[in-house]
Order: sequence, then C-alpha cells, then structure tokens
Amino acid sequence: MTQGGVTLEELKKKMADFARERDWDQFHSPRNLLLALVGEVGELSEIFQWKGEVPRGLPEWKDEEKQHVGEELSDVLLYLVRLSDICGIDLGKAALRKLELNAIKYPVILSKGSSKKHTQINGDNNSDGGLLASTKNNNSSCSCSSSTSSDCV
Amino acid sequence: MTQGGVTLEELKKKMADFARERDWDQFHSPRNLLLALVGEVGELSEIFQWKGEVPRGLPEWKDEEKQHVGEELSDVLLYLVRLSDICGIDLGKAALRKLELNAIKYPVILSKGSSKKHTQINGDNNSDGGLLASTKNNNSSCSCSSSTSSDCV
Amino acid sequence: MTQGGVTLEELKKKMADFARERDWDQFHSPRNLLLALVGEVGELSEIFQWKGEVPRGLPEWKDEEKQHVGEELSDVLLYLVRLSDICGIDLGKAALRKLELNAIKYPVILSKGSSKKHTQINGDNNSDGGLLASTKNNNSSCSCSSSTSSDCV
Amino acid sequence: MTQGGVTLEELKKKMADFARERDWDQFHSPRNLLLALVGEVGELSEIFQWKGEVPRGLPEWKDEEKQHVGEELSDVLLYLVRLSDICGIDLGKAALRKLELNAIKYPVILSKGSSKKHTQINGDNNSDGGLLASTKNNNSSCSCSSSTSSDCV
Repeated sequence: MTQGGVTLEELKKKMADFARERDWDQFHSPRNLLLALVGEVGELSEIFQWKGEVPRGLPEWKDEEKQHVGEELSDVLLYLVRLSDICGIDLGKAALRKLELNAIKYPVILSKGSSKKHTQINGDNNSDGGLLASTKNNNSSCSCSSSTSSDCV
Repeated sequence: MTQGGVTLEELKKKMADFARERDWDQFHSPRNLLLALVGEVGELSEIFQWKGEVPRGLPEWKDEEKQHVGEELSDVLLYLVRLSDICGIDLGKAALRKLELNAIKYPVILSKGSSKKHTQINGDNNSDGGLLASTKNNNSSCSCSSSTSSDCV
Repeated sequence: MTQGGVTLEELKKKMADFARERDWDQFHSPRNLLLALVGEVGELSEIFQWKGEVPRGLPEWKDEEKQHVGEELSDVLLYLVRLSDICGIDLGKAALRKLELNAIKYPVILSKGSSKKHTQINGDNNSDGGLLASTKNNNSSCSCSSSTSSDCV
Repeated sequence: MTQGGVTLEELKKKMADFARERDWDQFHSPRNLLLALVGEVGELSEIFQWKGEVPRGLPEWKDEEKQHVGEELSDVLLYLVRLSDICGIDLGKAALRKLELNAIKYPVILSKGSSKKHTQINGDNNSDGGLLASTKNNNSSCSCSSSTSSDCV
C-alpha cells in the first residue's frame, strides 16, 4: 500500500504474481475471467436479494454480514483488475478518463437532482450507456435549447 | 494520481464529489448501485458475446473496440467503488485482506495448475465462493492428507 | 400457442428456426449465448436501477415502461431457451424436476414465513444454491430436531 | 404438462402456489426477485467459467455436470417466471411478441450470416438492445438502400 492507499497497480501485480505462482495463467483468458466476474457479481447480489431496501452504511447488519459484503466486493474487484490486465488495459487510467467523460456528459447545471440518462438530458442520439445515472423511458424536461454545444456533449 | 498509480481512495473521493455536485446522493442507495453495477457488467458482456474465445491482449481488436472495453471496465469499477463507499466498506483494505485469505485457501503446492475450487482441493465443507479458481462438480484428486489444517483452511 | 398457453418447446422451435434462417447457428455456442443472456439481464436491471423499492404490479409505471420490462424479460427468456437447447437440455423437464426438488428442500412446515436458505433450515452442509429463498449468514432458529430426514433432505 | 410440453402458465401457477404455501409472497417484490435472478445467472456462469470454449451439446461433460447446468438454467427460468408474474406481465405473450419484433428487426435477407446489431444493419438510431445478434463498434457494410422501410424498422 502506498501512503495514499491501495493502488490498482498494486492489486494488478499481486494478482499476476498469485496466478503465476499457481500456474493459473493458462485459465485466465478474457472470457474465462469475465464469466468468473459475473459469478462474483451473482454472489454479491445474493447477499442483498431478500433484504428489500437497505439504508446507507448497512446500519442493522451483523459484522459477519458486512464482512461477507466486503469479501464479495473484493472478489468482483480482483477479477476486474485481472480481466483488465489480461485485456491489456490500464484500468486506473481508463477510470480517470471515464470520470472526465462523465463530467462532460453530465454537466452539473443540467443534471442536478435528476436521474435521467445523458441522452435524455442532452437530447442527442448517443446510445452509449451513461454512468451514474441512467433511466430509460423518462421524458426529458430539458429542452437543451439554451445550452451551448460544449455543455451538451 | 499518486506516484504509484491510481488509488481506490482517490476514485472514491472523485465519485463522492461527482454525486454531491449533482445532488445524486439521493439515488445512490446500496441496491440502486448494485443494480447499476449489474447493468454495467451486462454492457461489458455484450462486447464479448459473439466473439468466441478471445486471446490475451485482444490483439485483433480495433482501437475503438479496445477503448470501449476500457470504458465498460471503468463503469463497473466506478460503481463498485461507489457501492463500497455507500456500504461503509474500505474496498482497498478488504481487497488486500481477501488476497491474504486466498493465499491460505489456495496453497501453491496444492493448487498448482489446477482450476479446482478450494473446497475440492482441501476436502472441507466450506461453501464460500473461492476466488481465482472455482469449478464445481469436479472430483478432487487431492487427498490433502499431508497438509496441516492451517494450510488447508 | 397451445390451448394452455405458450410452451417452452414452442419457443425453442421458433428460436431454432429463426437462427437457421439467418445462418446464425455459427454464433450460437454455449458461452456466446451465456454472455448474451448476461447482457440482457443487465438491460433488465437498468430499468430498475434508480427506482428504489418497487411495488408488485408496477402500478405507477407508464405503459411504455411496462412494455420495456416485458421486452427485456422476453430477451432473457429467449436466450435462456436457446442456451438450453444448444446445451442439449430439456428446459421444461428440468424446471419441473427442480420444482420437485425445491418442494423437498423447503418443506412447508419448516419454511413458513422464513427467507432462510435450505441449508440453514435443515442444518445440513449442502452448498447447492437454493431456489426461492436464499440468505446467507442468518442464524437458523430451526432446530430441525423433530423432522424426519426425508423431510429435511 | 399439456400435451405439447411445459407451458409458462403452468410454471407461473406452480411458483405462485409454492410461495403462497410457504408464506413467501412477502419476500417476492420485483427487485428482490431481480437480484435473486442475478444470483442464479451468476451460479450458471460459474459452471462455465474455467472451461474455455465449449462445444454444442456439452459432449465431454459428465452427467453430473450436465444435470447441474439443467438445475441452474431452471433456477433462472423459475425466478424469471415469478418476476414476470409479480410485475403483472404475461411472459409467454411478451415473448411471442418479441419474436415478431425480432423478425422485423432482423430481416433474413440483411442478417444472413452476420452478427451485426440491427442498428448497424439498418442504419437507424434505435438504441434498443437487439436480440440474437448484437455487436457494437462494427462498421456495417450494408447500405440498406434497396430495403423498404418496412423491412428496416
């Protein structure tokens, strides 16, 4: 861990070492890892499946359950880091870039308090899945007419 | 970004700022974020769905496609980081801890070259989903007889 | 459609015809279809992602939204039917058999009003994922002591 | 089972009876069932995760493994049927309708041997997820110029 916390680079290296030591590189093809990731997302979902709505911070959960959540979140992360590595993608760099794209896609002035997808905010035809806010089939109340194009794309 | 690369802490902070500025905290409940994560895993899977087996490094993919993979991997990561934060879980710490647990669950000497689940390697009844190698219904050829119990659990 | 409603057999045949006419059998390998199924589950999840808890019958949803749900549910079903066919599995027969297994796993007298997993109800070590009710990490209050083993397995 | 095979209506009724007898209706909200469905898709994916490409019919799989696949496919189906019921959607009717829509979206003459998404075949801006064939980021070689609009939408 660096002074500022755990880096994605560090996890990537640990996963690569782990696999190499066990001769597991042979199993770590992109689609194998992707299906393993899906499996872990399934395990994470199972924890939440009969809970109904759950408040932030999981205040009434037992320590054992919260630890279980942490383990499943970690499993998803570790496979995600490994899948990125095997695909030749720098996940940290890609994530920072995506955050910048999202800031452009969801300008504060147009997105405030709305869960509308950016295609509904901006009125364009971009079908790319928007991060952080994405509801289909809502009518956008934003005419976007007064926005400059830099706001809207 | 710290000198050693992008930290999970940094992404967490950026996501929290992003949501606060847009008044989106109201949408970011644990199960909302979990379903959003599932949605992004679906988008990632769509990229790979008609490809058949894909070699490491995605050598024959167009730049555009590889960039698309990077964006979807990032979307999964960003929701995962946000979900962890909203659940009150330190994802970096949890991931390092899980890596240590995995090293105990999958001792090098017993796991080498095998994709068997740790329950099959160790012959115990632990039903916890094993990371990095997990196949059900294989018969384990490992008797585990020479292992100490501390190696095996 | 037979008099009693749409059969799985009928959907299977329609999907096979559809693929054959378009020369798409070449794309319909088990793992390709599985990833396509994951993609559709992601699209279904996106509809529900920012909704918070949703009441039965989706009473306040617009017709357009409910139709969208029906389409995504259908996409999941159609890929599931096709995947089963390609794997050589009779899905209808398997589902009826699974329902019988579930009735044994979750005896009415022990399961009433409880979302506990059958492993917690019965106190056995079966790690098979239980259908219809599955929460981990709950303590079972059921001692199972008065049950006959035929009830419990 | 009707003469023509297992109907979706029949499974729906069995699931409703099963839940009512166990007083489980209280747990079967739309989002609870959706997360349970995601959990089962995860279990299905785990079976295939370290396999690499798998041929049709799963010829080299043990009976035990094929039975496991049948069980997980069934779990996904049963939750899907239940979720549809709880959402007030006639799944069989919706599936037949979706098949008709797909036949229009993917006209035989334009789709033959191509895994391109219908938006790429038809050159329209429809961002709806296409069933049975869906790859993003491919350039469509089809000019669609000779097609009538009824073929193309």
